[in-house]
Amino acid sequence: MMMGDDVENGNLGPYQDRPRTFPNMRSKPYTPLIFRILRGINVRVLVILLLLGFIYVFYIGASTSPIIVFVFSVCIVSFLLSIYLTKWVLSKDEGPPEMVQISDAIRDGAEGFFRTQYGTISKMALLLALVILSIYLFRNTTPQQESSGLGRATTACITVAGFLLGALCSGVAGYVGMWVSVRANVRVSSAARRSAREALQIAVRAGGFSALVVVGMAVIGIAILYAAFFVWLEVDSPGSVKVTDLPLLLVGYGFGASFVALFAQLGGGIYTKAADVGADLVGKVEQGIPEDDPRNPAVIADLVGDNVGDCAARGADLFESIAAEIISAMILGGTMAQRCKIEDPSGFILFPLVVHSFDLVVSSIGILSIRGTRDSSVKVPLEDPMTILQKGYSVTIVLAVLTFAGSTRWMLYTEQAPSAWLNFFLCGLVGIITAYVFVWITKYYTDYKYEPVRTLALSSSTGHGTNIIAGVSLGLESTALPVLVISISIISAFWLGRTSGLVDETGSPTGGLFGTAVATMGMLSTAAYILTMDMFGPIADNAGGIVEMSQQPESVREITDVLDAVGNTTKATTKGFAIGSAALASFLLFSAYMDEVSSFARESFKQVDIAIPEVFIGGLLGSMLIFLFSAWACAAVGRTAQEVVKEVRRQFIERPGIMDYKEKPDYGRCVAIVASASLREMIKPGALAIVSPILVGFLFRVLGHYTGHPLLGAKVVAALLMFATVSGILMALFLNTAGGAWDNAKKYIETGALGGKGSDSHKAAVTGDTVGDPFKDTAGPSLHVLIKMLATITLVMAPVFL
Amino acid sequence: MMMGDDVENGNLGPYQDRPRTFPNMRSKPYTPLIFRILRGINVRVLVILLLLGFIYVFYIGASTSPIIVFVFSVCIVSFLLSIYLTKWVLSKDEGPPEMVQISDAIRDGAEGFFRTQYGTISKMALLLALVILSIYLFRNTTPQQESSGLGRATTACITVAGFLLGALCSGVAGYVGMWVSVRANVRVSSAARRSAREALQIAVRAGGFSALVVVGMAVIGIAILYAAFFVWLEVDSPGSVKVTDLPLLLVGYGFGASFVALFAQLGGGIYTKAADVGADLVGKVEQGIPEDDPRNPAVIADLVGDNVGDCAARGADLFESIAAEIISAMILGGTMAQRCKIEDPSGFILFPLVVHSFDLVVSSIGILSIRGTRDSSVKVPLEDPMTILQKGYSVTIVLAVLTFAGSTRWMLYTEQAPSAWLNFFLCGLVGIITAYVFVWITKYYTDYKYEPVRTLALSSSTGHGTNIIAGVSLGLESTALPVLVISISIISAFWLGRTSGLVDETGSPTGGLFGTAVATMGMLSTAAYILTMDMFGPIADNAGGIVEMSQQPESVREITDVLDAVGNTTKATTKGFAIGSAALASFLLFSAYMDEVSSFARESFKQVDIAIPEVFIGGLLGSMLIFLFSAWACAAVGRTAQEVVKEVRRQFIERPGIMDYKEKPDYGRCVAIVASASLREMIKPGALAIVSPILVGFLFRVLGHYTGHPLLGAKVVAALLMFATVSGILMALFLNTAGGAWDNAKKYIETGALGGKGSDSHKAAVTGDTVGDPFKDTAGPSLHVLIKMLATITLVMAPVFL
Repeated sequence: MMMGDDVENGNLGPYQDRPRTFPNMRSKPYTPLIFRILRGINVRVLVILLLLGFIYVFYIGASTSPIIVFVFSVCIVSFLLSIYLTKWVLSKDEGPPEMVQISDAIRDGAEGFFRTQYGTISKMALLLALVILSIYLFRNTTPQQESSGLGRATTACITVAGFLLGALCSGVAGYVGMWVSVRANVRVSSAARRSAREALQIAVRAGGFSALVVVGMAVIGIAILYAAFFVWLEVDSPGSVKVTDLPLLLVGYGFGASFVALFAQLGGGIYTKAADVGADLVGKVEQGIPEDDPRNPAVIADLVGDNVGDCAARGADLFESIAAEIISAMILGGTMAQRCKIEDPSGFILFPLVVHSFDLVVSSIGILSIRGTRDSSVKVPLEDPMTILQKGYSVTIVLAVLTFAGSTRWMLYTEQAPSAWLNFFLCGLVGIITAYVFVWITKYYTDYKYEPVRTLALSSSTGHGTNIIAGVSLGLESTALPVLVISISIISAFWLGRTSGLVDETGSPTGGLFGTAVATMGMLSTAAYILTMDMFGPIADNAGGIVEMSQQPESVREITDVLDAVGNTTKATTKGFAIGSAALASFLLFSAYMDEVSSFARESFKQVDIAIPEVFIGGLLGSMLIFLFSAWACAAVGRTAQEVVKEVRRQFIERPGIMDYKEKPDYGRCVAIVASASLREMIKPGALAIVSPILVGFLFRVLGHYTGHPLLGAKVVAALLMFATVSGILMALFLNTAGGAWDNAKKYIETGALGGKGSDSHKAAVTGDTVGDPFKDTAGPSLHVLIKMLATITLVMAPVFL
Repeated sequence: MMMGDDVENGNLGPYQDRPRTFPNMRSKPYTPLIFRILRGINVRVLVILLLLGFIYVFYIGASTSPIIVFVFSVCIVSFLLSIYLTKWVLSKDEGPPEMVQISDAIRDGAEGFFRTQYGTISKMALLLALVILSIYLFRNTTPQQESSGLGRATTACITVAGFLLGALCSGVAGYVGMWVSVRANVRVSSAARRSAREALQIAVRAGGFSALVVVGMAVIGIAILYAAFFVWLEVDSPGSVKVTDLPLLLVGYGFGASFVALFAQLGGGIYTKAADVGADLVGKVEQGIPEDDPRNPAVIADLVGDNVGDCAARGADLFESIAAEIISAMILGGTMAQRCKIEDPSGFILFPLVVHSFDLVVSSIGILSIRGTRDSSVKVPLEDPMTILQKGYSVTIVLAVLTFAGSTRWMLYTEQAPSAWLNFFLCGLVGIITAYVFVWITKYYTDYKYEPVRTLALSSSTGHGTNIIAGVSLGLESTALPVLVISISIISAFWLGRTSGLVDETGSPTGGLFGTAVATMGMLSTAAYILTMDMFGPIADNAGGIVEMSQQPESVREITDVLDAVGNTTKATTKGFAIGSAALASFLLFSAYMDEVSSFARESFKQVDIAIPEVFIGGLLGSMLIFLFSAWACAAVGRTAQEVVKEVRRQFIERPGIMDYKEKPDYGRCVAIVASASLREMIKPGALAIVSPILVGFLFRVLGHYTGHPLLGAKVVAALLMFATVSGILMALFLNTAGGAWDNAKKYIETGALGGKGSDSHKAAVTGDTVGDPFKDTAGPSLHVLIKMLATITLVMAPVFL
């Protein structure tokens, strides 16, 4: 771990002189190389470089399709917008020196952890790339590949290159999320001294910056790969690859993205919750000091955790969601276009890219619609920040519906079925409505305005035990409505697609699965705005921490508290959104997997029959994988938190002056402990997720070989994937909702209900909150990523099972 | 609720005079009608009646098959043995009056609840019988039924009669379990004053009595139904039912059994844990009085709970397990015999009955092998009671292997495949070994001799929160090994069966599924002994409670404490066993369901393809059903426990003399509160389990009708069943193991580790134990029953989906 040495050793200079601030919390300002270079470059040079890139990208785009040119243009414009947003955020003042010092310490911790974590991840990614390469060099080729002259070496290189690019982009997405949040946090704190509205605007724009970069990068990455393959492989020329087969070559990108996202989420999730739980258990429960109190030795680690766990990991997660969803929809669009013999299939293939280009446009408008008040002297906002954010969301969603209608008409109109685009537009509406309902359900189960959380809070009054029982029941129960909603939306989108009028050669309807894909796109059609709201939460949380640590007046703290509470709500609701889209995307990737297996096995692979014992066992193992993965993720937090508890207790005993501000806690040691433990602990669950599907598929392939079942391995993996998806959705819903509800039940009691702060009910509620932490911020979000990673790994590793 | 009025009103006479006992805890001795009649009958009349029954049963048995005669004889002998065991137990003294009074209060509470509960259940069963009748009167008939002249009215009557008989027997099984335990408990307490060995022997023999009755009744019930149908329907005469189709007519029996078991387990499970949690939260945690202290107003309710929750419910559960497993194996045996054109298929069909007849024989030997010491003056046992029980188990299992080999050779030898019986014997061995390994794994995760519980106990030292996180992780992790074991045993039994040499007309091997069935029988081949060990637990627990309440000397309490601890271990291990057999039985019933659908739909139904969106959604709904059911079961306990907490707190406030033994707590009120709440709370989860598969099947049948998918309803239900089975197994493993581990982590700390009783670690461990209570004794065991109930309900309700 590289980190300011002083922070490591806790020798932060004289402390008594100025008990309210922490001078010299870091020794040297550290800026990562890439940003140092970027900042060092003269603006004119930068413009010229950008223009050159712009022209080159347009050149290959133009050789492919005008649609690609459109996508490129939108992405580049949104990158320019995101640069404007950063500049705007960075132009804000960083507040008094005590804030800057704290913020610097957070930044050092976050960047130090990020470097070490991504160092480990990149080594694993390189190793995996070698494995993929060697598998693909020995794999069989499909008849299509042979007819199109795609050799083993070419497919191997394409897949590995895609994997590495996906991994890199996913890493950058995570880094961007963290980079801006560690810079915006202090600016939000500083602005909170002046106006709540300004603080809100800074947090939103900082979140918007990373959202635009993340979504834009996912879109442009796939578009560039698509265009490059198109030009390089001379697509659609005789004897070459057909354009409808092109999307299948992109799966490596999706796998790379989900691989990095999985480890980012695991490592970050363990970090943030171990620090949080450890800090709370000793600080809040044992010593009775408030949250984020500067006397708590684990407080900097806790604040660092928000950045590496929530910002970096969620950036990588959303990046991977969008990439997986675009690729699977492109594959399905290609397959369907081929079956229906549509003359120009590019509309169906490139549709997802266009949808997300419009996503960038409408979300940018939504983000920019949130403005500061003209009169900056007004300290307390006239409106609830949640209302402001939801106004922005309403703007975004209305525009999204309009642009969705436009893009379906533009891209999906075909003379074979003139009204098909209308059906697909309705599919998109189904997706948008599903997202809305999901958000509402999550709110119902996690907001203390409603019955469930109030009942949970009430059960705290009879003790720790009844609080936990009630929370577990609430979480388990909360899986029911989302599952019903997902079921209805899959069926209705499927039937809308099926009745679109698109038929294959034999005249049977084919648009069903593509309908589901369009619904998924509808759901994700405001992804950039959703991500903005998601990023807003940890930035506000951090700002609150900085305000608390630098001991600002009560009024400032009130403002950041309000923002923090809103952030909690947006964080919880976007999780519901993430699961819904993961469920749909995974269902789509599953069909892509079956197509892939069919083409490799040179025989039809259309059924996964769970009445076959081996296939049933595959399902059993798939569900078990989810339980084991969740167990290991939670246990990792528990173990690491215990290390933190011991360290914090030790510091309080060895440095009795800490409680009276006479002695300085050693923040650096806690940061170092959490960082090294999280890196260690993320390996086991991550390896489980990657190795087990490959191992199961390979074992059953061998078993099938000796017992005369040629496709056994592939079938067992298919069942594993489906059962893991179903169990994963349910488990993630359970973990997220239970965690969110516990958190808010505690907050409800802190408003003064049932005895308020310090009462026995409150103590029981704090226990619930502690239990909920690893549920909702480590295991739950890791499961979102796991579900999609499993879907992409089976696609990429299919040759192992055959 | 009928109950001694004095108990209800709490006016139990002068209290100060004799603070250590509770005179007049009940007003009138109550004995249920059937036992009053039985006791009233002159012994000679009884013998004559028995002889008459004996002759009649033998008459119809002899008209069917000599194997049935053998089964009848064994069952009747074991009933005689069970009568001997009861007489032996009842001949023991009931100890001093204070013990008798407490025991009487427990008996009143248990029998009062049982009557009300089974009153409600029987009304629901009658309603459901009417529903089944009307469905069957309007259902289509299968080609086989038409050719064999089985009309709609006949099948309807057969199914409904089977359902009602199954429900009745299941109810009797539950009653028998409770009847003996409320009588044995006080005799065990009394014997503990003399010798540990004698106390152990009484508890084992009491458990053995109900085990023999439960298993014997399951076997003889099916045998009588089989023989009656055989004679009545003139089986195998031309134009009549074929013997291989006969077992399918028995499914009503299995459904009736599981229907009653589900509500028995739900109601009893909610009762026992609500009382336990409520009593502990106020008594142990708030007031600091020991468990089962007479000052706790909920203590009688707690002790009643052991009887209605553990004894009655587990009796019904095991009865239903054995019935479901026998019927499914008979169906599979019949189908296979028919496919292979085996000349005399009765061996394959009746094999499960023979296996369980031998089970009765070997388990009786095992039970009788546990004897008292000759010298009853030795107070402390020379051996650990666990060792004694395991010696008995070893005797049973060795004999079971031998008799299993004998019965496979006797029943499954066929000239078509002379070595097939050997393969099937190996399948049985696989089952026996699986049971052994399951028991070992459960022990590893729940016994504090091993790493996992020690780690859990250690995590209590950092607080309530880390204890819960560690327990949840432990429970989730503990699902992995059992799933691997089940997977390996299903595959190996399937392949052993497949390679048995039995082939159908086309020459393809057919014995696979039957091999899995034989493995299940192997697993259950010592069921009666396992049930004995299971019943032993709550009897010992109750005895301990009576000893504590009647304030016997320390040495007596030590003896019952040791027995109680052993009971906890046996209870935990038999749960692992119950899940393993539920998983296998459910897999078998699933194949039976597919056969049933094939024959009704008059087309082949061999595949359940989860790549079809609707089928996938069926799976999603199935898994969701498990989560929602668990949620409602746990929430019911939480809510009821809160009512108890409030009542107990109220009594402590309103009667301050309770703590000094100056005033008497009102036990009756707690009993009444828990009883009425449990009855109310059992309806919702129970109705969910019964209604949802029927509703889902019917809705998708309608949807399939309009969209041109004739078998859609049946397929969706199949997926629902499979996914629910998988999720149910995992969830039950999680809940049971986590609960057991928390319980034992607390016990480990109570041995003095990590600060011992009263330390902060202990408080955290008590929280874990409280949370674990509804997990391991309400939701977990209810899931075992639910899994099998789903499998039988889909079989019986198949006409609704078609």
